[in-house]
Amino acid sequence: MRRIRLGMVGGGQGAFIGGVHRMAARLDDRFELVAAALSSDPARAQASGRELGLNPARVYADFRAMALAEGARPDGIEAVAVVTPNHLHHAVACAFIDAGIHVICDKPLTRTLDEALDLVARVKQSGVLLGVTYTYSGYPMVRHARELVQSGVLGDVRVVQVEYAQDWLAQDLEQSGQKQALWRTDPALAGEGGCIGDIGTHAYHLACFVSGLAVSQLAADLSTFVAGRQVDDDAHVGLRFDNGARGHLWASQVAAGCQNALSLRVFGSQGSLSFRQEAPDELWFTPLGAPTQRLTRGGPGLSLAAAQATRIPGGHPEGYLEAFAQLYREMADQIHARQAGQTKVQALPDVQAGADGMHFVEAALRSHAQGGTWVALKA
Amino acid sequence: MRRIRLGMVGGGQGAFIGGVHRMAARLDDRFELVAAALSSDPARAQASGRELGLNPARVYADFRAMALAEGARPDGIEAVAVVTPNHLHHAVACAFIDAGIHVICDKPLTRTLDEALDLVARVKQSGVLLGVTYTYSGYPMVRHARELVQSGVLGDVRVVQVEYAQDWLAQDLEQSGQKQALWRTDPALAGEGGCIGDIGTHAYHLACFVSGLAVSQLAADLSTFVAGRQVDDDAHVGLRFDNGARGHLWASQVAAGCQNALSLRVFGSQGSLSFRQEAPDELWFTPLGAPTQRLTRGGPGLSLAAAQATRIPGGHPEGYLEAFAQLYREMADQIHARQAGQTKVQALPDVQAGADGMHFVEAALRSHAQGGTWVALKA
Amino acid sequence: MRRIRLGMVGGGQGAFIGGVHRMAARLDDRFELVAAALSSDPARAQASGRELGLNPARVYADFRAMALAEGARPDGIEAVAVVTPNHLHHAVACAFIDAGIHVICDKPLTRTLDEALDLVARVKQSGVLLGVTYTYSGYPMVRHARELVQSGVLGDVRVVQVEYAQDWLAQDLEQSGQKQALWRTDPALAGEGGCIGDIGTHAYHLACFVSGLAVSQLAADLSTFVAGRQVDDDAHVGLRFDNGARGHLWASQVAAGCQNALSLRVFGSQGSLSFRQEAPDELWFTPLGAPTQRLTRGGPGLSLAAAQATRIPGGHPEGYLEAFAQLYREMADQIHARQAGQTKVQALPDVQAGADGMHFVEAALRSHAQGGTWVALKA
Amino acid sequence: MRRIRLGMVGGGQGAFIGGVHRMAARLDDRFELVAAALSSDPARAQASGRELGLNPARVYADFRAMALAEGARPDGIEAVAVVTPNHLHHAVACAFIDAGIHVICDKPLTRTLDEALDLVARVKQSGVLLGVTYTYSGYPMVRHARELVQSGVLGDVRVVQVEYAQDWLAQDLEQSGQKQALWRTDPALAGEGGCIGDIGTHAYHLACFVSGLAVSQLAADLSTFVAGRQVDDDAHVGLRFDNGARGHLWASQVAAGCQNALSLRVFGSQGSLSFRQEAPDELWFTPLGAPTQRLTRGGPGLSLAAAQATRIPGGHPEGYLEAFAQLYREMADQIHARQAGQTKVQALPDVQAGADGMHFVEAALRSHAQGGTWVALKA
Repeated sequence: MRRIRLGMVGGGQGAFIGGVHRMAARLDDRFELVAAALSSDPARAQASGRELGLNPARVYADFRAMALAEGARPDGIEAVAVVTPNHLHHAVACAFIDAGIHVICDKPLTRTLDEALDLVARVKQSGVLLGVTYTYSGYPMVRHARELVQSGVLGDVRVVQVEYAQDWLAQDLEQSGQKQALWRTDPALAGEGGCIGDIGTHAYHLACFVSGLAVSQLAADLSTFVAGRQVDDDAHVGLRFDNGARGHLWASQVAAGCQNALSLRVFGSQGSLSFRQEAPDELWFTPLGAPTQRLTRGGPGLSLAAAQATRIPGGHPEGYLEAFAQLYREMADQIHARQAGQTKVQALPDVQAGADGMHFVEAALRSHAQGGTWVALKA
Repeated sequence: MRRIRLGMVGGGQGAFIGGVHRMAARLDDRFELVAAALSSDPARAQASGRELGLNPARVYADFRAMALAEGARPDGIEAVAVVTPNHLHHAVACAFIDAGIHVICDKPLTRTLDEALDLVARVKQSGVLLGVTYTYSGYPMVRHARELVQSGVLGDVRVVQVEYAQDWLAQDLEQSGQKQALWRTDPALAGEGGCIGDIGTHAYHLACFVSGLAVSQLAADLSTFVAGRQVDDDAHVGLRFDNGARGHLWASQVAAGCQNALSLRVFGSQGSLSFRQEAPDELWFTPLGAPTQRLTRGGPGLSLAAAQATRIPGGHPEGYLEAFAQLYREMADQIHARQAGQTKVQALPDVQAGADGMHFVEAALRSHAQGGTWVALKA
Repeated sequence: MRRIRLGMVGGGQGAFIGGVHRMAARLDDRFELVAAALSSDPARAQASGRELGLNPARVYADFRAMALAEGARPDGIEAVAVVTPNHLHHAVACAFIDAGIHVICDKPLTRTLDEALDLVARVKQSGVLLGVTYTYSGYPMVRHARELVQSGVLGDVRVVQVEYAQDWLAQDLEQSGQKQALWRTDPALAGEGGCIGDIGTHAYHLACFVSGLAVSQLAADLSTFVAGRQVDDDAHVGLRFDNGARGHLWASQVAAGCQNALSLRVFGSQGSLSFRQEAPDELWFTPLGAPTQRLTRGGPGLSLAAAQATRIPGGHPEGYLEAFAQLYREMADQIHARQAGQTKVQALPDVQAGADGMHFVEAALRSHAQGGTWVALKA
Repeated sequence: MRRIRLGMVGGGQGAFIGGVHRMAARLDDRFELVAAALSSDPARAQASGRELGLNPARVYADFRAMALAEGARPDGIEAVAVVTPNHLHHAVACAFIDAGIHVICDKPLTRTLDEALDLVARVKQSGVLLGVTYTYSGYPMVRHARELVQSGVLGDVRVVQVEYAQDWLAQDLEQSGQKQALWRTDPALAGEGGCIGDIGTHAYHLACFVSGLAVSQLAADLSTFVAGRQVDDDAHVGLRFDNGARGHLWASQVAAGCQNALSLRVFGSQGSLSFRQEAPDELWFTPLGAPTQRLTRGGPGLSLAAAQATRIPGGHPEGYLEAFAQLYREMADQIHARQAGQTKVQALPDVQAGADGMHFVEAALRSHAQGGTWVALKA
């Protein structure tokens, strides 16, 4: 299958998530990175480009220039990965949407809800694709979990418990100048939500993605435990779903001992399931009144949805990069389908899923401002 | 050491927790069961007494008669175990307090907060001891967890996550006439709180017992998922502690796949710990920035508090009965000390801990009645 | 049910397993300890007896005197627990068998195979019962495992993996004078086998008990890793079963990090199971080609055999003492049946099971002496 | 860094491990696949090449022709991946060694020990590099385990337990014509050892790689449980190491419920470690007399060796492909160093490690032929 020509904005030397996107894009060999604006500093941009073996003529210091130039080339990029801090997502995405170039955007979709809603409208008008890398939705066992819920074997969903706990901000790392900590705790770059935006959105998306439910109301108790920090570093959020189910979301970046402890449990009237991101090749499923089963990627009884997100046989662990690669693979499929004038239905999170995450952040901030009362998700 | 003469109210044929109390009392050989009011039906009381090898003359059908008779005998009982449904706890406790007999009462302490506060006052005036069987506080690793928090190695507690999930009421078991389901879902017998009272109080006590913190505010979202049920069967409760820590308590009796899934996690500024009741011989401890340690009962590095609650060497599992027995052992020690005119400081939950649990239930019901808003623990 | 009058030989102050036997005997209230030879030192015997509240007249310093006296009393003991070091098991058992008193003997049955075979003959002639406390066979999930194999759902057993690893003898603890280490590493007291006898016999019994298979050949590689030790402290034993199945038994007392890490896995042509003694309330079962199931004590799908060994509902952990108590309970049932002229078929390990363990030890020593070659279990 | 021009022999449509090699080679972007002999059938070779986007002129049906042609091109491949069934490894490797092209060979190195020893000699003479993809040695936590042993914190190694259990051959899959089962159970294609060669060699390498020890003697009990199978499908192998340590290796392809259950435990006089391939981001470490620690990839306290094999932060799982990619990355480093006239010391398994594996297989077959007696590793 022909490789799609890919560009990247952000992800130069010293960045984190850009390298992950590149590995993810490379794993299934559906993309070829051919152009990039890796840094707004021209020298650094070129140095970063050299490391990646890029043609210097296609290394840019300005993303708008890149969008124009690449949009105009006959061999210009067909898709761009946006891996900058959050505050640039909107502007970068707009530039490439305007150039007719598909967009793969890191999460959260934007810095503000308004920006997100604007992108929804622009994507709709433009006809380009915009995928959001809610990475965890790419895991095979998450796909299977979603299938289990949809199949009805859990009965009516009653309770959803989701949490994402980290400890890398348990101390004031931003004071040390660490790059990731710096921008992620700066409202001007990350958005008004700290932890709630950075990882709360992941947890929120996972809960909705698997349960198939929408949140109608929430009540958020946000805390900033580290003195001097400008944003929340811990969030307890009560959830009420549209079908009457109840739930709770806990996101924390000060939870000592936790690396990326994202977990999801869904309890229905007929059964339950449990998933832990740090052990992503397994899913625990209990039919009410029967023993708990350990379902494994590549193991017996899995759905087509799981199989389609699987690269190697069971018992040989897959991980985060494969989940990430799955989103890239599906984006490639979408792009090929779009270019062929077809429509492809897939689990890949789209711009609407991105905007939903921003609704969540906005509602949590709103609830918190009101003392933690219950508020409607959409004001 | 001389065995203490023990009586029991409740716990006849078909009951559940009475047998547990008897095994717990027997394990350490500090008590001898010599009298009981096992049923209000005289024939059934005698039949139950015969099974236990009791002297028929000391088998009663009326607990008030028992209190009077035993209080008057020179060889009368020195303590009584109250293992009836909740609605009788207060009256039974009063009868024996009045007779100068020490009381071991199952949880929750009473059916209402008022009854609980009344017992606090009576115990204070009377000079008798009243212990509440918050069983889980008797586990050695819970004792060690408490020591760890008190020692300061966790730093300032920031987040407390506690949950107690069961699934035995996932369907309308009470409709089948099952005895335990019947009274535990009947507000007249159990109290206005269902799940929140039955197991929420356990979780609440454990969280406070280990963290050493008091809850100042809570916000409760109670649900009744099973149609026709008269009480809540699921409770999500946001917690605000007096030191500024945040937390969440989830109690559910409709969580498919859960038996007695009580777990507690405490996160501090310098470390964290995690305990699961279903694997009670281990405790996970993470000093911030160091590997997680698996601490085990009887293993290296444990405190005196843990050792004192341990019967057999590590690696040979202890369980629920030993935790329960620990409370009985400590009650025996207290009684001996009291009889010797001494005071003994122990972890054993007392009448105040019992009343605290009723404050929790009352506050949760109050918050829920107000739409799930934050309320003060004590109105 | 009437309590059986129990005596004990061994288990005085400073001993370990005697206290365990007493708790186990007490838990189900089927026995009453009324006589004992707790020490061969009269003063120490009386002091120990006082601690246990025994009638001084029935506290003995000589087990032979005890057997004669108790055998002659109308209210004499009906059964005796033998909890001395191994070298006394045979003589003590003989004394009580001769007095017509049932015997509950700790493992290994004797110090030598010849003693064991002699006991088999004496028990047969005498008509008394002799039970051996292979504790781990009393776990409900071990009972269920055995049922699963017998039911045929595993198909033909192909592979049995069993191991029992400890680390308490990883250093030369016996040099410190620690009592347990002292006698267990002294061939005159423990037998020629060290680790192979002390815990290898437990592992061996468990493997045979659950698989229902007999070992026909074995090959043993015994090591003594701690300098100066007189007996083996590590044993690797290849197993060939009579049905053609293969297996391996590893017993070690120098395995750093292991407390009582006894585990068993049985693989058949149609499925497998896995049990870990340190998590005894669960059993993992995999039907070939289907997801692994976590079976739990008190949970769905368990056999009557498991239920009969269960005291409290699932999710409230049971442990080692309950497993031990199960053997006592079954011994009580056997004694009552025998007294009533009935025969009761139970899983309780008998004198033959004890002798099988000694065959195992003897064969392992024989194989080792021959350089670790394969030898027949019975020479 | 310049990409190395890579070729591949084997791995056409329907193959398994070829695709894994390609993903592994691609992940770190150090290789570019430019030529291949994907099948000996010309049409199939071309079709497979087309799928991979290869230049048709560099798609070969004959590996010897490929070696000659590529060896002669100025832009010819610098390294070749050999991913055929075992019986071709020797001939393919020879062809490319003769052409001065570096070789990355799947395991086991060859079909026979003689072929392996021949390759050792040829590599020595030729100056080319030959790496063997003992995949599991590429895991970061395996690298860390090796460092721990080397650092001495475990003290003297006493016991090594290693096992690799699968169940995919629990039934006679080869009768169904399944391609992998077919050749792996055919001695003419796989070698005389079945399970012992296919996965026993992995376990053996891992045990030696981490412990730093060499096996001096072994005793093998090989079984063929599935009727009609031509090779062993289960192997129990006793191990004696050159320092006096003891161990056991179990490899099985009929172990119901096991996918790729490779695990390693190393017990020393001062501590122990435990690793499970199916949870490769964690390593359990117990210093004797202290609590067990859960070490995690990317977590606190890890060695440089672990860090160098790590791509993404801890808590975001890495897996099998990353371990595989690590070997490719190190091969790239080796090739660059060799081309620069330098020597680079790395953990990457070389031709000698490959030959060691064949010594193991030969010795196991020899021991088994002698009834399972102990034999020297090298006859």
